[in-house]
This record gives sequence, structure tokens and C-alpha cells, in this order.
Amino acid sequence: MDTFEELYDFIENGDKVYMPHFTLECVIFGYENKLLKVLLTKIKGIGWGVPSGYVKREEALTDAVNRILKERTALDNIFLKQFHIFGDSKYRIKPQAYEGSDVAITEGTWLAERTMSIGYYALMDSSKANIQLDFFVEDYKWVDINEIPDDLLLDHNEVITKALETIRNQIFHEPIGFELLPEKFTLPEIQTLYETILDKKFDRRNFPNKLLSQEIIVKLDEKRSIGQHRAPFLYKFHKVNYQNVLLCMNK
Amino acid sequence: MDTFEELYDFIENGDKVYMPHFTLECVIFGYENKLLKVLLTKIKGIGWGVPSGYVKREEALTDAVNRILKERTALDNIFLKQFHIFGDSKYRIKPQAYEGSDVAITEGTWLAERTMSIGYYALMDSSKANIQLDFFVEDYKWVDINEIPDDLLLDHNEVITKALETIRNQIFHEPIGFELLPEKFTLPEIQTLYETILDKKFDRRNFPNKLLSQEIIVKLDEKRSIGQHRAPFLYKFHKVNYQNVLLCMNK
Repeated sequence: MDTFEELYDFIENGDKVYMPHFTLECVIFGYENKLLKVLLTKIKGIGWGVPSGYVKREEALTDAVNRILKERTALDNIFLKQFHIFGDSKYRIKPQAYEGSDVAITEGTWLAERTMSIGYYALMDSSKANIQLDFFVEDYKWVDINEIPDDLLLDHNEVITKALETIRNQIFHEPIGFELLPEKFTLPEIQTLYETILDKKFDRRNFPNKLLSQEIIVKLDEKRSIGQHRAPFLYKFHKVNYQNVLLCMNK
Repeated sequence: MDTFEELYDFIENGDKVYMPHFTLECVIFGYENKLLKVLLTKIKGIGWGVPSGYVKREEALTDAVNRILKERTALDNIFLKQFHIFGDSKYRIKPQAYEGSDVAITEGTWLAERTMSIGYYALMDSSKANIQLDFFVEDYKWVDINEIPDDLLLDHNEVITKALETIRNQIFHEPIGFELLPEKFTLPEIQTLYETILDKKFDRRNFPNKLLSQEIIVKLDEKRSIGQHRAPFLYKFHKVNYQNVLLCMNK
């Protein structure tokens, strides 16, 4: 969307192009400097939330989520994983005049109907993210997961909470975060990543055992020299699990 | 639905009550006599598939899935877990006359529009399932997962395949199947369950280690006498994981 005319047309006639009743919502986690953040975007005249949008009537769901993220942020080739559909809160967009215009979302029109959200998440190195703004997305920010405002659009707070819960539950079963480390990494590097995502400290002696026993990582017969007397062993993600994730990405 | 009039009204005016564009589909796995089966139902005039239905406009998703399963099978208090939303195949119900009547699903009406499916699964002891038929559901059967016909309704084959893949992926991380064993069980009992669900054999000496290391089960200081010289130790599901599942069930 590049003009007000397009926006007004979307509000009034969008259901000719898009399927009503559900939106896709993208929770993009960014890891940087030992902090875990979430990408929030500000939609013109609406407010702050995660990048989201509707599915076109003839569009595959997977294509839709990639298109939406690209349109809203210019991020491309991000592996987004579906994690939940939110259909219990029965939220709907309140009928309201569109800020700064005489166009209104009114009762009985498609945008005012009940909507369910399909949640997707991705994890990325936020220092490498090149977010671009456009007419519709006025602003963006990476917000520490402990400092997310509680008044995001619609059900976006619930969606972020559930996404965080999901990656925390899966982190010892799946190679979550494998895109955030170099191919070969030291135990302190992966421990810091895990501590950041889980927001807790692990004992340095016990931490590796859990990852090794769950076949998340494997120890290499290789060291990295980081000082005169310091050369820790290197590790990598377990080949099979790692490949499973890559396979998912290429689907 | 109890009469043809109600059915015809649903075909013509159902979108006044139900949200179009997506259905809920319930994959009910039944475990019995060392076999894993899936519950199929035959919908009058339509064909065989898994129990499925639409969400009412004012109904929470979780309420809808419980209602649908109860309406189609009379099964009640089953914990159904959401596992995927299928939105890539873009399937739609083909315009067709409703078998044995002059009512038709025609192009441009709500049932002929594109639909996405929200998949739920449950695991139960099929010998204890008391399925009841009604006007709309003409017949049912429990079908071995290796013998499922490949011409089920709409995308139901894809949904069953993905549900099976999901429980197989999760079985070493979550106490899947805890409803299918007594509270205290022997290693051969749980090994048989796992072998049935995964359709493979495990070495009797290695099998317990994986479950114990993943904190799925714990060994009890208690034995069951099953013969003159045979008294295997008993196990139970790990308390924390077990409780997590129960918490989910009570949500």
C-alpha cells in the first residue's frame, strides 16, 4: 500500500481480495548482545504490534506469511514457523474512524468481524536485519522481551507470550537458535544464547550434558585458540536434527 | 442436525451461524490390542473422513472442537490438542448436488469457497470409546493406521498423516500416551505402546534409557508380581511432565 486511496479501498473492499476472519501474525525474535528482543512495527493510524496481515483468497498460507513479512519490514528469506492459532479470545476490531481521515471501520463491514490469528515465529540476528519502512508502516523498534508494552494491537500481547513460551519449551528438543551461532561454537557461546532465551542461569558443568544427551549438539575433535592457555573444544548442532530443520526451511 | 430440512438449511444458510473459510478436523487415535487406529466417520451423502465441522461465529475455538467431536461421535471430555493449520493446499468443496436430494452446493455459495483446516488430535483407548451414530453420521470405524483408504474427504488424508508425524516426533519429549497405560506400568508395557505408535522395534536393553534420560518416566521402588520368579519394577510418568499435560488439559 502506497497511498491513502489504496488504504481506504482496503478498508472498504479488502474482502474481495483477502479472506476475512483470520490474520497472520509474525513474532520476530532478535538476538543481539546477549539480549532477546521482539520486532514491533507501528501501523499508520492504528498503533504498535507485530507485523501482521490477511491471506489473499487464492494464496497458500506459507506464501502469505512470507509476503506479509516482506511487505511490512522488507525482511526476506526468513524461516517462519507456524506455532498456534488463537481462536478463543474472539477479538474483533472496534468500529472506529480511521485516524486523520473520514474513512471508518463500521459495524457489519469485513474488518469489524471476528478474527482469529495464526501465529508464526522466527529467530534472527537482529544486528543483520535490514528493516525498511514504507507508507503503511510508520516506524519499528526491537524491544527487549521484558519491556514489551502491554497495550499492543488486538491480541498481539497474547501472541508474543505464547511464541516465547513455545521457543522456551522447544529449545531442549530442537536446534532453536542454530541460525544465531557460527557453524562451530564453544560451550560458553551456546550457553549464553540459551541463558538469554530462557532468562535463567545454568551451572557451567551441567549445562552441556542436557544438550548432548538430547542430541542437540555434538562435540568436535577440534579446538579454537582464544588465548595463551585457552583453547576450548568446539561443538556443532547435531547433524540429523540440524538437517531436519533445514529440510523444514526448504519446504 | 436431525432432519433433511436442517441439513438443507445448513448448506444454504450455514454461514449465518458458522464462520466460513475454515473447518476443525479431529484425528482420534485409538490404541487397542497393540494396534494404533484412527476413527473415521461417514457423513451422510458425502463420504468417509475424520470428524470435522465449522466454528460458530460467537464460539471459542476450543469450545467448537469439543462440540464438534461430541456432535459427530458422542465422545465427551476428550483432550484434543491443536497441532497444525493446513492452508497451503487451497482445497475447496466441489460444487455438486447433495446426494439423494435436489439441494446443491453451487459456485459462489459459502460451502464452495476455499477452506483451511485446523487440525486437532487425541489419543484414547478405543476399547472404551462409546461412539454413537445419528442422522448426519451414518457409520464409523476404527481403521489401522497402515490401512487408511487414500480417498478420504477433502484434505483428511494429509491431516491424518501430519497428526501421526506429530505424535511420533513428540513421543520422546512429551508423555504422549499417558492416558493409555495404568498409572504404574512395567517397561514391556510402555515399550509395546511406543513400538505400536512408532511402528518399529526397540532393543529391550536400550529402550528405557531414552525415556529415563528425557525425564519422561521414573522408576519406582516397587514391583509387580507376574509369576513365580518374575516381578518387574514398576514405572510411572515423570511427575512434572505429567502435570504439565494435566494443566494443559484443564486450560
